[in-house]
Amino acid sequence: MKLWEKGIPTDKQIEHFTVGNDRDLDLVLAKYDALGSIAHAKMLGQIGLLTSEETDSLVEALHEIIEDIAKGNFIIEDSFEDVHSKIEYLLTVKLGDAGKKIHTARSRNDQVLVDVHLYLKDEVKALKEQVKTLFDLLMESAEKHQNVLLPGYTHLQIAMPSSFGMWFSAYAESLIDDITMLNAAGRIVDQNPLGSAAGYGSSFPINRTFTTQELGFETLKFNAVAAQMSRGKAEKTVAFAMSSVAATLSKFAMDVCLYMSQNFDFIGLPSHLTTGSSIMPHKKNPDVFELIRGKCNKIQALPYEITLITNNLPSGYHRDLQLLKEGLFPAIQNLKACLDIAIFSIKDITVKQHILEDKKYDYLFTVDTLNEMVVAGMPFRDAYKAVAEQLEEGTYTSPKETKHTHEGSINNLCLDAIKLKMLNSY
Amino acid sequence: MKLWEKGIPTDKQIEHFTVGNDRDLDLVLAKYDALGSIAHAKMLGQIGLLTSEETDSLVEALHEIIEDIAKGNFIIEDSFEDVHSKIEYLLTVKLGDAGKKIHTARSRNDQVLVDVHLYLKDEVKALKEQVKTLFDLLMESAEKHQNVLLPGYTHLQIAMPSSFGMWFSAYAESLIDDITMLNAAGRIVDQNPLGSAAGYGSSFPINRTFTTQELGFETLKFNAVAAQMSRGKAEKTVAFAMSSVAATLSKFAMDVCLYMSQNFDFIGLPSHLTTGSSIMPHKKNPDVFELIRGKCNKIQALPYEITLITNNLPSGYHRDLQLLKEGLFPAIQNLKACLDIAIFSIKDITVKQHILEDKKYDYLFTVDTLNEMVVAGMPFRDAYKAVAEQLEEGTYTSPKETKHTHEGSINNLCLDAIKLKMLNSY
Amino acid sequence: MKLWEKGIPTDKQIEHFTVGNDRDLDLVLAKYDALGSIAHAKMLGQIGLLTSEETDSLVEALHEIIEDIAKGNFIIEDSFEDVHSKIEYLLTVKLGDAGKKIHTARSRNDQVLVDVHLYLKDEVKALKEQVKTLFDLLMESAEKHQNVLLPGYTHLQIAMPSSFGMWFSAYAESLIDDITMLNAAGRIVDQNPLGSAAGYGSSFPINRTFTTQELGFETLKFNAVAAQMSRGKAEKTVAFAMSSVAATLSKFAMDVCLYMSQNFDFIGLPSHLTTGSSIMPHKKNPDVFELIRGKCNKIQALPYEITLITNNLPSGYHRDLQLLKEGLFPAIQNLKACLDIAIFSIKDITVKQHILEDKKYDYLFTVDTLNEMVVAGMPFRDAYKAVAEQLEEGTYTSPKETKHTHEGSINNLCLDAIKLKMLNSY
Amino acid sequence: MKLWEKGIPTDKQIEHFTVGNDRDLDLVLAKYDALGSIAHAKMLGQIGLLTSEETDSLVEALHEIIEDIAKGNFIIEDSFEDVHSKIEYLLTVKLGDAGKKIHTARSRNDQVLVDVHLYLKDEVKALKEQVKTLFDLLMESAEKHQNVLLPGYTHLQIAMPSSFGMWFSAYAESLIDDITMLNAAGRIVDQNPLGSAAGYGSSFPINRTFTTQELGFETLKFNAVAAQMSRGKAEKTVAFAMSSVAATLSKFAMDVCLYMSQNFDFIGLPSHLTTGSSIMPHKKNPDVFELIRGKCNKIQALPYEITLITNNLPSGYHRDLQLLKEGLFPAIQNLKACLDIAIFSIKDITVKQHILEDKKYDYLFTVDTLNEMVVAGMPFRDAYKAVAEQLEEGTYTSPKETKHTHEGSINNLCLDAIKLKMLNSY
Repeated sequence: MKLWEKGIPTDKQIEHFTVGNDRDLDLVLAKYDALGSIAHAKMLGQIGLLTSEETDSLVEALHEIIEDIAKGNFIIEDSFEDVHSKIEYLLTVKLGDAGKKIHTARSRNDQVLVDVHLYLKDEVKALKEQVKTLFDLLMESAEKHQNVLLPGYTHLQIAMPSSFGMWFSAYAESLIDDITMLNAAGRIVDQNPLGSAAGYGSSFPINRTFTTQELGFETLKFNAVAAQMSRGKAEKTVAFAMSSVAATLSKFAMDVCLYMSQNFDFIGLPSHLTTGSSIMPHKKNPDVFELIRGKCNKIQALPYEITLITNNLPSGYHRDLQLLKEGLFPAIQNLKACLDIAIFSIKDITVKQHILEDKKYDYLFTVDTLNEMVVAGMPFRDAYKAVAEQLEEGTYTSPKETKHTHEGSINNLCLDAIKLKMLNSY
Repeated sequence: MKLWEKGIPTDKQIEHFTVGNDRDLDLVLAKYDALGSIAHAKMLGQIGLLTSEETDSLVEALHEIIEDIAKGNFIIEDSFEDVHSKIEYLLTVKLGDAGKKIHTARSRNDQVLVDVHLYLKDEVKALKEQVKTLFDLLMESAEKHQNVLLPGYTHLQIAMPSSFGMWFSAYAESLIDDITMLNAAGRIVDQNPLGSAAGYGSSFPINRTFTTQELGFETLKFNAVAAQMSRGKAEKTVAFAMSSVAATLSKFAMDVCLYMSQNFDFIGLPSHLTTGSSIMPHKKNPDVFELIRGKCNKIQALPYEITLITNNLPSGYHRDLQLLKEGLFPAIQNLKACLDIAIFSIKDITVKQHILEDKKYDYLFTVDTLNEMVVAGMPFRDAYKAVAEQLEEGTYTSPKETKHTHEGSINNLCLDAIKLKMLNSY
Repeated sequence: MKLWEKGIPTDKQIEHFTVGNDRDLDLVLAKYDALGSIAHAKMLGQIGLLTSEETDSLVEALHEIIEDIAKGNFIIEDSFEDVHSKIEYLLTVKLGDAGKKIHTARSRNDQVLVDVHLYLKDEVKALKEQVKTLFDLLMESAEKHQNVLLPGYTHLQIAMPSSFGMWFSAYAESLIDDITMLNAAGRIVDQNPLGSAAGYGSSFPINRTFTTQELGFETLKFNAVAAQMSRGKAEKTVAFAMSSVAATLSKFAMDVCLYMSQNFDFIGLPSHLTTGSSIMPHKKNPDVFELIRGKCNKIQALPYEITLITNNLPSGYHRDLQLLKEGLFPAIQNLKACLDIAIFSIKDITVKQHILEDKKYDYLFTVDTLNEMVVAGMPFRDAYKAVAEQLEEGTYTSPKETKHTHEGSINNLCLDAIKLKMLNSY
Repeated sequence: MKLWEKGIPTDKQIEHFTVGNDRDLDLVLAKYDALGSIAHAKMLGQIGLLTSEETDSLVEALHEIIEDIAKGNFIIEDSFEDVHSKIEYLLTVKLGDAGKKIHTARSRNDQVLVDVHLYLKDEVKALKEQVKTLFDLLMESAEKHQNVLLPGYTHLQIAMPSSFGMWFSAYAESLIDDITMLNAAGRIVDQNPLGSAAGYGSSFPINRTFTTQELGFETLKFNAVAAQMSRGKAEKTVAFAMSSVAATLSKFAMDVCLYMSQNFDFIGLPSHLTTGSSIMPHKKNPDVFELIRGKCNKIQALPYEITLITNNLPSGYHRDLQLLKEGLFPAIQNLKACLDIAIFSIKDITVKQHILEDKKYDYLFTVDTLNEMVVAGMPFRDAYKAVAEQLEEGTYTSPKETKHTHEGSINNLCLDAIKLKMLNSY
């Protein structure tokens, strides 16, 4: 049953190609489509295009559909093109003419736009909550291990002393920037596009302010053409924010994989978090973190995919936009899974205690030594040369402990200030 | 003069390869490097690592350098590796030991981080101002041409009536979302990284809160490792926001190029905004908008370039990060040039007045006709079939005017509401 | 049943996260895994690590598995991690110790490498065949419509005369370059990686030349580390070649969508190749070509995704590489579907006959006019000015036919030479 | 002096924006533009549109221009839009009417197309030569250090024995695949586009076969529209091949940076190949290889930049294409510089001799031990369990030498076969 079908049978192959995997992808939108339809029905009632009986029966039937969706009883059979057709069909079967009237003053473009906005608004909120949980966990780990020293590297060369407190809370503080990006994305999707019809508005006297309030949007995307142009743009914005989170997570995972290597041996993972090899019996591989890294790297390709699909298309709807769903929807689920498994796994990371006792890390403290000379009055460049000479002659000895007191240094992590910044940014 | 040189001459070819075009790129950072040094010097004075005489002389000398930069008298000769070395050299030549001491308690990593943050903060602000100017211009054009109708397309097929009012203000409203992205980027770069030294802090008792206030940053990037990790991340965030602006501009330019084609002929450009052909005497090509489109599309590749450079690098500084400047800095200038020329050119776009009189646009009004039937009581699906039949039989006649009254439609553009939303988002 | 399991239960959540959708994706590799195993078993027999009875029974059992795969009877249950475990399990259940021995002298890395190489070799071949079919169809269309003129555009401005013969055969000739890219990809995947074990070879006296011949590979990837590094590189190479094909197809689809617009109206599509609108009864949308364009644009993001996953990983296997399958495998199917539907649809494109009769296309012939003056002896720049003046004064009249005789021009399409080039490149 | 200028002054700002940095970029094309003009002039003579005196004087003047270019005496002043205008100007000043006639039967589109094809053909050849030199060097290093063992890693975990012979020759063999990609790119750019005029051919009776032979192209891009479409496509193809080379080089550089880290300490670099730190006197940083990695990663963004600029543009020239030069030309120089510096630096890599004596590498040999049991008749899975138990109980002892005999393994590197493969692929 195609809504636009006027008697000429569409070739099967064409149908298969054009519908694609929309039926599967649309399942995630079903709840939002029903919610959008409830707001639309109420509004049609309010402006007199539906009787109050019609409105009430539509709203009731849509609530039943939402219950079915929640129970997992909602399916989109092959005889339907998409979720919109299926829900309209259910309403028409149940309510007859009232069911047919739900499509008054709207278009499928309208529906998919409002569905996607509602969906993304929810998912951005869910991502923010997960990022906050990860933040809390990293801050907790930083506090717990704040006295355990770690070599700091530049150029992958041993450079200066660091600590697990520094390491864990650095990623926590980085996540605050990702929250800022998620907030921007959240704000951008929090604008009601419903009522834009096919992208140019319509001659119906609809009340878009009403549906905006009904659906809980912060504001309207007023201009109908702008509402249509948000297709692709909303998705890309969310993809940018997701890329930010993914980049932080990927970098952390890279550190974990490196620190797990026997050549670093800074941390350990319990057996249930590692996997083995089919031919090397001694292997305990950090597959979980490799896959977090890989999946998060893949997510960072998403904005580019969206850009390639939408770029250089003039304004107005194009069918290409349908393809946005099949990249974005799984990517959201993948990022959520990565955050989940990261939270699950970071809890169990074991921190090695006496890393800096290894002789090769002695060099770490040269700068501290040099700084002491400076504080004692020697010009920096001269102190630099003095320490260089000690190293050359092999006379340098390391203090093996740090007295870093400034904001954000090993012995002054400013965890409370970072927590406050998160609160202010959330 | 390489700061780290200890007597072994570095091979010329290596030097050329590693320094790259840093000297040119660093010129843009010179002012910010001097400003960062002033704040650093004052702070060293405040914590007693410099005498007040030393502090004053450094601050004065740095202000002189800033004046030279403003006058275009500051250059980085081939004997210097970068802007940091050059400024330190100038200070040392002028002030002797006091000049040498400016590098106390900081690293070049530190300097480039704070320079880039200050620079990006300024550029994000400048971009916001340009976007606001473009917004104002588009809103003005929308108001001026709000009664001139235009065909609206879906699938590049004639679809429904639109107007120049809709078209211009749609892009204006879209720019509000780009402002939201710029705000996020602005917030993320508005965190002081100074004091992170080589990325792990130091044993000097520096006062980072002091430099934060001195430099006018909103807050600190507290954790020194997080501050270091902002390299690449700050740039990418700005690139994401720039991509948003660029995508809006590129799409507008695509519309302009299409609407300029003789096959659409919706708008005109004065001769000084077009270029000709070396063999086709009748050509008036919209090169300006093609180049806006092309340059803005190129800018959208920037986040991916940054991601490719930084991805899968473990935490800690890597020399690769130096390459971020050569992609980002010109891209910022390009986006600013595109905004400038767009503002310059859009002013002169001529709007054709009687476009819809062409018979091929009659179809535009079928939906309005259909809607009237629905408002008069016919179920939507039945009205749809009736109009389809009229079309089939050739009996359909078009009203040629619109009565669209809802928020964001042709006859109710909500320009004031959109202006208010911009104000709230700016 | 995990091969590396040694008694410690792996957490369910971890398993779910790490296995991902490998079981589905691996189905496509099943046949190749069995073929690789047959070659491996024969080789183990040849070097005496299997008895000839063991070899024969393994080969026979594997052929039965291949038959099951062909019949659609092969499934990978949730109790198996991947296709390799499942096939080994089937062999062990059926053959006992002989089944266990098939894994001698190889690793799962080995298996997935050889599977993917065999699979990609087949798919590159299939893509080449489809591209050739599309080439033939475009050449046929070019020949059929060679006398129908079309406006040629530069800057989307009416420029010079073209023809459907030019248009169709231009895309055909472009496909020859895509064949060259597919040939490069085909050559690169036609190197046997089997025997590289976990990426460093092994102490078994295996005979890799034997398996190379057995599997029909052109040569070996000799170095075991190089064989391992081909993971990601082979996929990216194929993705580059696919991107080439996709770019050609996407551009053609863009032309079709534009030419279908009522503002161009150069071509038509029969009803079964268009779709309608839920609210606009007159619409006949070229969704098929919009989706070809969108899908082909999405495919062009694939190399970037692969690069992001693999970039900056040091040599040696990383679990991230597992994720390559989930991007590449569906992309191959999508490109094949796009080629299929393009071949299916282009057949039915109707070509409008008298396009150039529209007055706005008169300008097309100015250059021909100008050239005639030049051939008659006037310097080019003077002729250019003369025609410019005629245009200015409105005295220019158009010849409305072309006499283009050089190689590759309207009246001399060189179709045979292009066909010969395809043959030489195939 | 703009060729298409007809009296109306183009606004300065517009000119600056549209010309961009074409004058600089075009310098690289100057020689090719002159060569293309020589072929074109000879052809015009051959078909009688120039007298033999005109032809001779043009050819002579163009040869003089080529000499000036070689001497560095050729510049493009701000009064010229591009290289084509400048050369035509020089010819006109020198030869009067004969100079004006050179532009007969061609367009600037034509010129830039043929220039870029000739340029890319040369650069692909140069890249191939550099890759071959790097291949030879890596093969030599492999041979020299073939007996020095190295740990092999999977998942960054110590896995199996490898060697410097394996490591160096793995990258060499990988480069063969990059040669295959360069060959494909070379073949694709080796097609003469000259004669396509503005992209649709012309009414002049030009002889494109003549210019094809004159310029040494393998064949013609026959169809003029196809020739025009090669703009962007040729560049992208070369960018794909460059990305392949860059990916190999980047991965090698990542290995070098890791192996230089004190935590691996597998290789050393002489002082002149490392750089220091402004505050850490002991640092010897592998900046050269970090910059190779970074620059090569940046190069891998190039195909995406090209795709973003060209994607979704309908057929026919668009001014956006001008922007292709500014991404591609510096990228080619950067890749050549990276190859140069890699060749320069790899020569000086010092290989550490007794790496595997460190106790942590004992595990490397477990698989060899296990394999011996298998060769002695134990089923693989049983041997696997036996070794796992020895490891668990701490009774495992390592043989510390390898007996890997199969093709492409430590003790059988097949260097001659790899060299032969390179010869066959070159």
